[in-house]
Amino acid sequence: GAAAPAAPGPRGHRVALHVLSEGWASPLRGFMRETEFLQALHFNAVRGGDGSLVNMSVPIVLALDDAQRRAIQADGATAVALVDAHDRPVAVLSDIEIYKHNKEERIARTWGTTARGLPYVEEAITNAGDWLIGGDLEVIEPIKYNDGLDQYRLSPAQLREEFARRNADAVFAFQLRNPVHNGHALLMTDTRRRLLEMGYKNPVLLLHPLGGFTKADDVPLSVRMKQHEKVLEEGVLNPESTVVAIFPSPMHYAGPTEVQWHAKARINAGANFYIVGRDPAGMGHPTEKRDLYDADHGKKVLSMAPGLERLNILPFKVAAYDTKHNKMNFFDPSRKEDFLFISGTKMRSLAKNRESPPDGFMCPGGWKVLVEYYDSLAPPEGSSKLREAVAA
Amino acid sequence: GAAAPAAPGPRGHRVALHVLSEGWASPLRGFMRETEFLQALHFNAVRGGDGSLVNMSVPIVLALDDAQRRAIQADGATAVALVDAHDRPVAVLSDIEIYKHNKEERIARTWGTTARGLPYVEEAITNAGDWLIGGDLEVIEPIKYNDGLDQYRLSPAQLREEFARRNADAVFAFQLRNPVHNGHALLMTDTRRRLLEMGYKNPVLLLHPLGGFTKADDVPLSVRMKQHEKVLEEGVLNPESTVVAIFPSPMHYAGPTEVQWHAKARINAGANFYIVGRDPAGMGHPTEKRDLYDADHGKKVLSMAPGLERLNILPFKVAAYDTKHNKMNFFDPSRKEDFLFISGTKMRSLAKNRESPPDGFMCPGGWKVLVEYYDSLAPPEGSSKLREAVAA
Repeated sequence: GAAAPAAPGPRGHRVALHVLSEGWASPLRGFMRETEFLQALHFNAVRGGDGSLVNMSVPIVLALDDAQRRAIQADGATAVALVDAHDRPVAVLSDIEIYKHNKEERIARTWGTTARGLPYVEEAITNAGDWLIGGDLEVIEPIKYNDGLDQYRLSPAQLREEFARRNADAVFAFQLRNPVHNGHALLMTDTRRRLLEMGYKNPVLLLHPLGGFTKADDVPLSVRMKQHEKVLEEGVLNPESTVVAIFPSPMHYAGPTEVQWHAKARINAGANFYIVGRDPAGMGHPTEKRDLYDADHGKKVLSMAPGLERLNILPFKVAAYDTKHNKMNFFDPSRKEDFLFISGTKMRSLAKNRESPPDGFMCPGGWKVLVEYYDSLAPPEGSSKLREAVAA
Repeated sequence: GAAAPAAPGPRGHRVALHVLSEGWASPLRGFMRETEFLQALHFNAVRGGDGSLVNMSVPIVLALDDAQRRAIQADGATAVALVDAHDRPVAVLSDIEIYKHNKEERIARTWGTTARGLPYVEEAITNAGDWLIGGDLEVIEPIKYNDGLDQYRLSPAQLREEFARRNADAVFAFQLRNPVHNGHALLMTDTRRRLLEMGYKNPVLLLHPLGGFTKADDVPLSVRMKQHEKVLEEGVLNPESTVVAIFPSPMHYAGPTEVQWHAKARINAGANFYIVGRDPAGMGHPTEKRDLYDADHGKKVLSMAPGLERLNILPFKVAAYDTKHNKMNFFDPSRKEDFLFISGTKMRSLAKNRESPPDGFMCPGGWKVLVEYYDSLAPPEGSSKLREAVAA
């Protein structure tokens, strides 16, 4: 049959179109068909063309409701056009396959819990349709957001070019969804030092903040990007050996499952070293008073994952505020009373209350960006929750 | 430190000791340590000594409660003796590792649901301790049950010997936890026919009923073994080309996850063909009116599973009672009105009520065994629920 319109508007799948069309999720060539969906859920890896296992831990799928499914199947379509909010086609999905969206099983096998209150689940799965449509994707034009940040949205191919242009002989990636404080900077500069010690001549950092959905109390992307700019401007990180770009993925908060996706996507973009810390992509259990994941499991699972055998994982030491030296420093258990741990929650609450963090916690320009952001959230008008919706 | 007593009595782990000590779960050399546990949960496969992936989809673990854990750790033990109900040591676990038993995550990643009422979960996990102990296992004597069925408990090595003795050039395994009806027999004899057509000269069937925990309404092992004997005696299956033995595993009812374990263990015992049907190891959702798993997922997941690449999977057609020919026959959609589907539940209810199934459903001697079993369950005294307890 001819191409038929289908599926929700671009708010529903722009990020996924972006991720898929640029090859972050290679070897996927579009939204997962059922075999790929099952492989991701059960094995965290899909088969490449030669039968080898390629890491792919989170499902990248497109949901349909009953009416959408019936419309496509009634039409006998083998391809569908994906349209934006104005019904303009933005992509074509061909050789389609429609299959059941078993949400409970998907959530359980991805998050290791089905407790209510998982942010990505509530945002993108709970109210999504009961069917999934897979197929080969072709976008009509490169995906743009027109939010003033598109210059940071480098594709894997563009990143590889940039690393080549800089004559990088090692690329190490740092994943974050929060403002960069001096503890992060310490980890990154120390990693570069270690790579130089290992004999690399020009290790380049890919500072790669997550650009898609984050939970409501996280700092929005535009503010984080301004804050990252200040970190480079004020020399906390060296602009010569740092590439700042946006990683176009929603945050799943799926811990050991998600950290594999974070690492795999960066490998596709040319990174060969990946920095992994305590409890990557973790969060508190939504209904119990404990962390959702064991803090060590992310690193362990990443180090054993199928399809990531050639990945160089760089575990890092914990950094905290050293009250004796008035700066962020690697935690030294022999003088643990000198260290202050400032959590993301604590940092946000300081900025909200216009209090200053200890001197040396973050560069002044970066901190100013955060304070101004929280100032702009005038409480009577409510928080301006402009969030990017995500494909289910 | 010296070996210290630990862990529950043999009812708590005899089946697991049996499975592990005979090599069904090779390359595991004992109860899973945390790395193996995480690999099973996330990848359904563990790394072999050479780094290759070996299928291992269900955790085989031993739980400790707080007091047991404290006793072992206070003692500084590096090995523990596993004792039976009379405090006699039956095995030694050495080079031990104790780690957290996150039950919710284990259940979610194994079953794809955390709904209450999963039989194995209720039996072996919900009330188990909050810690797991892994290590290398050595049993002091081969595990025996002394229930009159030990002659059927052939180890993987003994089965391989038996297949060699019979000059088998192909071994095809059939997993079941129910009495054998003529539909099963049709599948097995038809499989042998197909293997002969493929050029094998002497395909041997491993008829391999599951010997460990099954849910309360399943027919007990001793009755099933008597029923299987009748099936061979009455020539429904050919004793010359059939080896009947007991597979010493508990039933998890974990669908696509568990079917991999069923296949992998039989490969370890010398099988190279595995018959897989509709919804293997499936059951109804414990709290919703639907099957827990999609009926096709078991076969699909099995066919794609890491570490099972060399397995030959034999999908089979659905068999049902053909009312026109008064026998079990492969379902023919062109005359679907002639077919009668007799479920396990229906079969049990017929036997309970001393009603006869249609002629040709099961050999008369086999049916008599079932009827006598249900007769023996005199309702006033309640059902004699002598079940094998299982390691967590």
